[in-house]
Amino acid sequence: MHKISDRAQKMQASPIRKLIPFADEAKERGINVIPLNIGQPDIPTPKPILDAIKNYDEKVLAYCPSQGNEGLLKAFSQYYQRLNINLETDDIIVTTSGSEAIFFAMLAVCDVGDELLVFEPFYANYEGIATQTGIKMRAIRTFPENGFHLPSKETIEASITSKTRGILICNPNNPTGTVYSKEELRNLAEIAEKHNIFLISDEVYREFVYDGQEHTSVMTFDDYSDNLILVDSVSKRYSVCGARIGLIASRNKDVMKAVLKFAQARLCSPTVEQIGAKAGIEMDMSYFKPILAEYQKRRDAIMAGLSKIPGVVCETPGGAFYCIVKLPVSNAEEFAKWLLTDYDYEGDTVLVAPAESFYLTPGLGINEVRLSYVIEVDKINRAMEVLAAALKEYQMLDRIELAA
Amino acid sequence: MHKISDRAQKMQASPIRKLIPFADEAKERGINVIPLNIGQPDIPTPKPILDAIKNYDEKVLAYCPSQGNEGLLKAFSQYYQRLNINLETDDIIVTTSGSEAIFFAMLAVCDVGDELLVFEPFYANYEGIATQTGIKMRAIRTFPENGFHLPSKETIEASITSKTRGILICNPNNPTGTVYSKEELRNLAEIAEKHNIFLISDEVYREFVYDGQEHTSVMTFDDYSDNLILVDSVSKRYSVCGARIGLIASRNKDVMKAVLKFAQARLCSPTVEQIGAKAGIEMDMSYFKPILAEYQKRRDAIMAGLSKIPGVVCETPGGAFYCIVKLPVSNAEEFAKWLLTDYDYEGDTVLVAPAESFYLTPGLGINEVRLSYVIEVDKINRAMEVLAAALKEYQMLDRIELAA
Repeated sequence: MHKISDRAQKMQASPIRKLIPFADEAKERGINVIPLNIGQPDIPTPKPILDAIKNYDEKVLAYCPSQGNEGLLKAFSQYYQRLNINLETDDIIVTTSGSEAIFFAMLAVCDVGDELLVFEPFYANYEGIATQTGIKMRAIRTFPENGFHLPSKETIEASITSKTRGILICNPNNPTGTVYSKEELRNLAEIAEKHNIFLISDEVYREFVYDGQEHTSVMTFDDYSDNLILVDSVSKRYSVCGARIGLIASRNKDVMKAVLKFAQARLCSPTVEQIGAKAGIEMDMSYFKPILAEYQKRRDAIMAGLSKIPGVVCETPGGAFYCIVKLPVSNAEEFAKWLLTDYDYEGDTVLVAPAESFYLTPGLGINEVRLSYVIEVDKINRAMEVLAAALKEYQMLDRIELAA
Repeated sequence: MHKISDRAQKMQASPIRKLIPFADEAKERGINVIPLNIGQPDIPTPKPILDAIKNYDEKVLAYCPSQGNEGLLKAFSQYYQRLNINLETDDIIVTTSGSEAIFFAMLAVCDVGDELLVFEPFYANYEGIATQTGIKMRAIRTFPENGFHLPSKETIEASITSKTRGILICNPNNPTGTVYSKEELRNLAEIAEKHNIFLISDEVYREFVYDGQEHTSVMTFDDYSDNLILVDSVSKRYSVCGARIGLIASRNKDVMKAVLKFAQARLCSPTVEQIGAKAGIEMDMSYFKPILAEYQKRRDAIMAGLSKIPGVVCETPGGAFYCIVKLPVSNAEEFAKWLLTDYDYEGDTVLVAPAESFYLTPGLGINEVRLSYVIEVDKINRAMEVLAAALKEYQMLDRIELAA
């Protein structure tokens, strides 16, 4: 037999997508599956973006520069200026989504066998990209009890080894929804400088911050410029997940020189979708105000629903559109599968993402799920009714052991 | 100082793109720079593709499945049926261009430190992707004297070590233009089976085959299905390089299962451009006949021009739209740079790709360039006049040593 690589075998299937085949089967049986698994907003893509795509009128759909479409780079730079983040076009390289930006950041920072510090639970695909590139993730645990905020500087520094090349954070956080404070972030930048490592900050949910909180970008820490790498994406902000347009930015010239070589090896990001993205970034961000209000309503709806279900534990998240929820089941993945294969409540069921893959430490997250709230409030309310009834039935069937 | 990774430092800048800044400077001085460096066809993108993009009318530009748009997968499967290549939709995963397909193929086959056999000169970005993923390339030399065809089975097998996990070929070849015979390809498939390794075949130039020759896809070797991985792309075939739509295909289920996990880790390929690509693939391939005739004229024009320049060595290539040309200079990269910084012939100069990076063995390719012929015959003729005059002046200036 022709053996595939160990890393291919070791790769985990996406916890967000692996139950989709069961959801498809449920749909074929006529069940209405309410999606709480994936961060695909239902907000309409802004008209200027769709118009820019429709109005594409070049004769040849040609390569664009490896660094990105010039107009898009300028638009990104101006967008950051509006946020008081100083990034020239030369500090930015357009990537094929935030995923590729993470990939380039990891490659620029780590050799095979090097370590990256992350805080668990973390976005599961970080681990997938690390597996592909031979990088070891080292996870520091965060806890629901304090809203998954970061531990002390001392605790973090205790996990730094001679192999550690960087710290990778997501702020606001996927999957926890945590918005880190300026102080927490400054601590990380100080640790990065002290240990001569990089701080990679994934800020694709920057605008999704509730309750009037402020978001702090690490790129505002000008005094630590050499240590900082920013990952960004237009996917969530403008509801254009399918455009696959993101960026990596740094004021460290060595990093950007390296990333340009990585970018050249894949030639360029999609040309037409870059033109669409440019139209989005040039919009006034007042566009986002009603959207933010809508998401806050959704967050409130899912929290209200969850709080009514006995045995469910979830702190109110401050940003992004996800939460990590502890369920009164012994194995959340089995429960999630059962929801699709064996259950419906008056014709409805829900699709959730088992949280185990968002943890690195074996045994953690087994009775947790990640829920996203990117659907309308009515649908969220109905999903909570279904979830409550399902948990009741699952427990009555004695198919679970109550979590400790 | 914050050290970037060794692999980032080791990455080579793209030989195809690294001289572009000098070309831009020349253009700013008013020089007309004729591009012979990059494989960006000037052929108009077919109207059905551009129309499909213009007619995109979804409200949300959403993620599509990690495997690819369903309609596109079906269109690909049907396209292969027309070529007598049996690939079901489940044997195919859409990738963000051929580059990503190469990346996934390498990851599926090789762990860090494993080896891939290639034939030098080879497409330089293969080495870039191998560097990113910690894979070692081992190169077997091919020679212009026999049109860069493959050596004997024995020679190839002598390079297989316990670390070798696959053989990677490009057919028709970039950068040599070589079209491999059915016998050569069968030999490779036999070697792959005998040594229990994979044969990865990059066939993105499949239709670019001249003089009435036939192209053989390794995927027609049904008896070796388990060993075979196909890399493909719509970029060149439909003049849509900027769409970034390619695919990886295999009838080996373990390979496809692994690749789907890699694909999930980057979520999906660009949604709108997949819809454009689908419209292209559904076109009747008679569309390609006049284009092929045009490329054959261009190939003939560049060969006629090169044959008139003293000291230049180039065999007539049978496919793709590149050729490797030996120049009567001691260092082709210095000459290529000089063309942009110090030379013009009546206001014109040429941009070429130094060939050294297409070789792995140090010292090879130093006096060679890769030329692409994706521009009109008149422009090719003019480029050859400029190149002839430039070589004469470069030699007169005694800035070169004649190659042995």
